[in-house]
Amino acid sequence: MDSDRLRVVLVATRNPLNLGAAARAMSNFGFRHLRVVNPYDVAFREARSAVGAAELLADAEEFKTVADAVTDCTLVVGTTAVRNRELQHKMRALQAGAVEIRRRLRSGRVALLFGSEKTGLSNDSLSHCHWLLRISTREEHPSMNLGQAVAVCLYELARSGGPAPKRTKSPSASAGNLERLTREMLAALRISGYLKAGPNTTTDAKVRRLVRRLELQEDDAEVLLGMLRQMLWKMRAGKATGGE
Amino acid sequence: MDSDRLRVVLVATRNPLNLGAAARAMSNFGFRHLRVVNPYDVAFREARSAVGAAELLADAEEFKTVADAVTDCTLVVGTTAVRNRELQHKMRALQAGAVEIRRRLRSGRVALLFGSEKTGLSNDSLSHCHWLLRISTREEHPSMNLGQAVAVCLYELARSGGPAPKRTKSPSASAGNLERLTREMLAALRISGYLKAGPNTTTDAKVRRLVRRLELQEDDAEVLLGMLRQMLWKMRAGKATGGE
Repeated sequence: MDSDRLRVVLVATRNPLNLGAAARAMSNFGFRHLRVVNPYDVAFREARSAVGAAELLADAEEFKTVADAVTDCTLVVGTTAVRNRELQHKMRALQAGAVEIRRRLRSGRVALLFGSEKTGLSNDSLSHCHWLLRISTREEHPSMNLGQAVAVCLYELARSGGPAPKRTKSPSASAGNLERLTREMLAALRISGYLKAGPNTTTDAKVRRLVRRLELQEDDAEVLLGMLRQMLWKMRAGKATGGE
Repeated sequence: MDSDRLRVVLVATRNPLNLGAAARAMSNFGFRHLRVVNPYDVAFREARSAVGAAELLADAEEFKTVADAVTDCTLVVGTTAVRNRELQHKMRALQAGAVEIRRRLRSGRVALLFGSEKTGLSNDSLSHCHWLLRISTREEHPSMNLGQAVAVCLYELARSGGPAPKRTKSPSASAGNLERLTREMLAALRISGYLKAGPNTTTDAKVRRLVRRLELQEDDAEVLLGMLRQMLWKMRAGKATGGE
């Protein structure tokens, strides 16, 4: 079933009650696969708020990084209540976004990311996202409780779940391939002198977002990866010869 | 405003956290008037879960009976996750029900009732309702957390009320910029050895189509052009040095 392809990913969640509440909403609306990145409380699996969803919480997968948590997904969507937080990201209102997620669930896994209660998703986490889902809240009080935000998003996703028209398009690139492409690109930009040598989280996040915005198909991602590797080889070869 | 005519009525709520969460969701979605019937905890106004909604909670009106709490309303709607609980009551799915509530808010006050965490609305409370609103949850696990149920209902009500949300998207790249990008890319692929030297209409068309499939925004196209030019410069510099 399509719903089984959704991965709800909770990043740096502070309060185990919220993890439990998220699990309960998942169970209410028929989603089963929870992933957790660096929760503050390692004992989160005992959350008492997971009424009726203890098994789902026990089966939750834990990851150290967002990259690891989304690597097998072909679409990565972040959630935010804030307008225009990141002009670099395309924003979709929940209703329209849910329709698009549903469409993509027909052919691959989709990761839906929720950030921490205090700060939401960090810029680094956001840089792994293809686009952002926005719940339309009141401008004066946009920030929702985490468990409620999860419930509202999954309600809308479950609601949009009816049969939809088919589309013929090549499968989307997996997050793992996009990240490989990002790394080769960063290496190429550094060796060419476009970027300064040495890692830089701000720059890295910018390039990562740029790669995600391309909404690449899997085969195109592989072609681009091959092209970049060839250019990298050439730049390195030139450097070696030139240095002698 | 129509939203100001809604009365969210929490009946016999046990956990003050849920009262606070309900208040927060109300504030998020632009509803201001909370009514409370016989809460278990008389100190509910201090609920820490009412982030950003302390004032709304402080202004909540308290009543002894459901009858008193809905007396000035022209429509009273109960909420339930259970199917066919009361054959005496008409049921509406949340989406259709929200449209009807919106219509009625144009001319009068509407009460939306939520029952206690353990038992939902009692038969006595239900008897005050004109009809019931049902959130479509999974049959095996229909019962939602109270705060999440309030959030989902108010999200749907807010959605049915406002104008369609705007979408923010950057302008798409011009064909001229896409073609410049294509040419630099072809040059880079040839100098790197990925493609054979000299023009080749088949290969050129392939790369051109690839660039078009990226559906680039204008500013991203310019950034990529800059990156490619830098790599080209580097590859040419290496070649020149290496050849000497």
